[in-house]
Amino acid sequence: MAVNTKIVNIEVKDIRFPTSLEGHGSDAMHTDPDYSCAYVIIRTDAGDGLEGHGPTFTIGRGTEVVVAGVKALIPFVVGLKVADIFGDFATFWRKLTSESQLRWIGPEKGVISLATCAVLNALWDLWAKMAGKPLWKLLVDMTPEQLLSVIDFRYITDALTKEEALQILKANESTKAEREAELMKNGFPAYTTSTAWLGYSDETLRERCKAALKDGWTWFKMKIGANLEDDIRRAKIIRSEIGDDKVLMMDCNQRWEVSQAIDWMKRLAEFKPYWIEEPISPDDVLGHAAISKALNPLGIKVATGEQCQNRVMFKQFLQAKALQILQIDSCRIGGINEVLSVILMARKFGVPVCPHAGGVLLCELVHHLSMFDYVCVSGTKEGRVIEYVDHLREHFKYPSIIKNASYMPQKIPGYSTELKKASLEDYVYPEGRIWQQLAKEGKVKL
Amino acid sequence: MAVNTKIVNIEVKDIRFPTSLEGHGSDAMHTDPDYSCAYVIIRTDAGDGLEGHGPTFTIGRGTEVVVAGVKALIPFVVGLKVADIFGDFATFWRKLTSESQLRWIGPEKGVISLATCAVLNALWDLWAKMAGKPLWKLLVDMTPEQLLSVIDFRYITDALTKEEALQILKANESTKAEREAELMKNGFPAYTTSTAWLGYSDETLRERCKAALKDGWTWFKMKIGANLEDDIRRAKIIRSEIGDDKVLMMDCNQRWEVSQAIDWMKRLAEFKPYWIEEPISPDDVLGHAAISKALNPLGIKVATGEQCQNRVMFKQFLQAKALQILQIDSCRIGGINEVLSVILMARKFGVPVCPHAGGVLLCELVHHLSMFDYVCVSGTKEGRVIEYVDHLREHFKYPSIIKNASYMPQKIPGYSTELKKASLEDYVYPEGRIWQQLAKEGKVKL
Repeated sequence: MAVNTKIVNIEVKDIRFPTSLEGHGSDAMHTDPDYSCAYVIIRTDAGDGLEGHGPTFTIGRGTEVVVAGVKALIPFVVGLKVADIFGDFATFWRKLTSESQLRWIGPEKGVISLATCAVLNALWDLWAKMAGKPLWKLLVDMTPEQLLSVIDFRYITDALTKEEALQILKANESTKAEREAELMKNGFPAYTTSTAWLGYSDETLRERCKAALKDGWTWFKMKIGANLEDDIRRAKIIRSEIGDDKVLMMDCNQRWEVSQAIDWMKRLAEFKPYWIEEPISPDDVLGHAAISKALNPLGIKVATGEQCQNRVMFKQFLQAKALQILQIDSCRIGGINEVLSVILMARKFGVPVCPHAGGVLLCELVHHLSMFDYVCVSGTKEGRVIEYVDHLREHFKYPSIIKNASYMPQKIPGYSTELKKASLEDYVYPEGRIWQQLAKEGKVKL
Repeated sequence: MAVNTKIVNIEVKDIRFPTSLEGHGSDAMHTDPDYSCAYVIIRTDAGDGLEGHGPTFTIGRGTEVVVAGVKALIPFVVGLKVADIFGDFATFWRKLTSESQLRWIGPEKGVISLATCAVLNALWDLWAKMAGKPLWKLLVDMTPEQLLSVIDFRYITDALTKEEALQILKANESTKAEREAELMKNGFPAYTTSTAWLGYSDETLRERCKAALKDGWTWFKMKIGANLEDDIRRAKIIRSEIGDDKVLMMDCNQRWEVSQAIDWMKRLAEFKPYWIEEPISPDDVLGHAAISKALNPLGIKVATGEQCQNRVMFKQFLQAKALQILQIDSCRIGGINEVLSVILMARKFGVPVCPHAGGVLLCELVHHLSMFDYVCVSGTKEGRVIEYVDHLREHFKYPSIIKNASYMPQKIPGYSTELKKASLEDYVYPEGRIWQQLAKEGKVKL
């Protein structure tokens, strides 16, 4: 890369899609999401036309708070040379995530982490574009030492040392090429969440299950947790449509107490759920451990991670045997840098990583993570599957490529983070054309 | 209270004091804090001139992000009747902290929690003023049932049920009056952090220790964690000044790894520290548990809480025996409502609550919490002490009243949350007089 290329401008937008008008994406806790993102664009003085784009997923109100968070970070990035960032990425990462005044409003959690992640996603997108490679390939082509140079091991050395991480990466190095070739041919398995949002009627449920089966899906996730009798009825409908040979997962979105989670899942065990996702507060490591212990005899795994705030929490979930499926997210923790540390910890503890996706651009981003995980870290697809949700793809510049219910590796350089130009204009909140029109029609209040 | 009184206006200000210019408040992680707050003012249509004031402490940059968080919450509070809020406070609290779109940017952590707390602090201040009582007295005069009506037990019932909380409160009810009378006479013990900030020279250390001894202080806290040899030298200086009969606490402000914390404290054990505060990441429950286990034979307790994000984390710290001193904060978690649930859990687990204070208005606020804890929950002062830091008090309308190194109970109605009118004007960032003047003098860049 050009040695003197500098970051000269960072722009941030509040982009919202009015998904709540149709009930897509609804669950027991998030009853009316407007799928949204704070969207960062990083520009340099290279004159090569390359921009880094970085979204962080949100669900409507509050996106403007994340935008304010991004604005607070901009002064610490603009003016830097990209070579200085990418050449010692772990040091830059720590400076950004531990800024001496900003860390108070986290630290490393909530709004400031979402904002940091948008900036980091844009930086990684830029790096991959400059390298002329899709993000997963940029990572796969790095040496173990280069990969470690982007990771900050602060607060996790009691679970994973740098030396242990090096050993994991080195052990997989000689066989990387085989797995990469296999991946290009077969892709990485996916599951669908589009069939069973909580807001869907029984008829819609049936229709969507039938359609998904026709498309070759074999793993299905349903939303539960608002009402037990409803859940039983809906699970019956889904099982009657998909049969007993398909995999069914359940997602409660943090609705329960610890004992309630155990009782409720005992009632639903007859439908053979593969996992129960987010049964309780995402912060409750010990609660998840208790549920894991209670549900293990029933063959039900505990899955969580989409709202897990950082590597320190993931570390504890692993140490406490509190999850059996680790659902990494591409927008909540500190970018690829922190994601890598979590994927490496999961490998050490023998827990499969099954990324959270859906929302705005999450499918597009996370597939890069699983590709890397498979080629360089876990070395297997056994028990691994990426979430897939089909809506909003018309707005994405490089939408996921699904074949035979599998994600195919993206070939276009970058992190697949871009929204289409027209969408970036029309859906800016509140001044974009679509929002102004909806307001005029009385469908929303701005 | 007037049945129809409505909240008609909420204002929020970004207030910053340029404390970094003199090194006050510096520690191993927060090297240059400008003590600040997002400051909320709630007004009603009662025509009685009463306003609710609610600060949430920050340390400079990022305050504007918390202000954005408050603005996102305002639409959910303006227009409500105060009787509806205070009459069923737990329900209002859950609606505010679990708003279906806003919860995504937390949930219940970081910026959105700090913002929520500012709003709740203002509501509690308003309630106490309407009742014509200082906040601690408002709480002390409530029946156990009234107290429970403000608490949301979601996510903590595996550690403390509503019924158990009721038993704790009822057990103390008949002897409340004795303790209240005792408190009015003797106050509640305090310790000083003003003697040993990390940025102070050895000479300043000595001077400040001598002055504090003269003022009757017997508990002292020093900041450590940047350099072991420096810490040893500074601890020697402090012990040589205060002697062996006084209590010395140490605070690392999250600088270490788990094993490093244990090693470092073994080296400092000769100075007989009573506790080590925030040795590692505030999110690391299991790490704190490991440190607690290792330091117990040395008689060193583990203290944490000022950056503990919510009741779910405090629950786990208690369940895992990861802290022996619980440092509740008045501005980080969800207001008095959530503080009460934590104080009750601490009582059940037999752990003393020693509030975090200092910063902007924290001393003023937290003393109300300890007064309540003593009279209604713990029933004892044994091993309990409130942090005290003396700077910035010239800006506070109702500064803490310290007598014989003890906090005396505030008698003025409200939650002691108010800044003086002139300070509210002069220190608004960046347009206030003081900041404009400092910029003109080239001392700060706005």
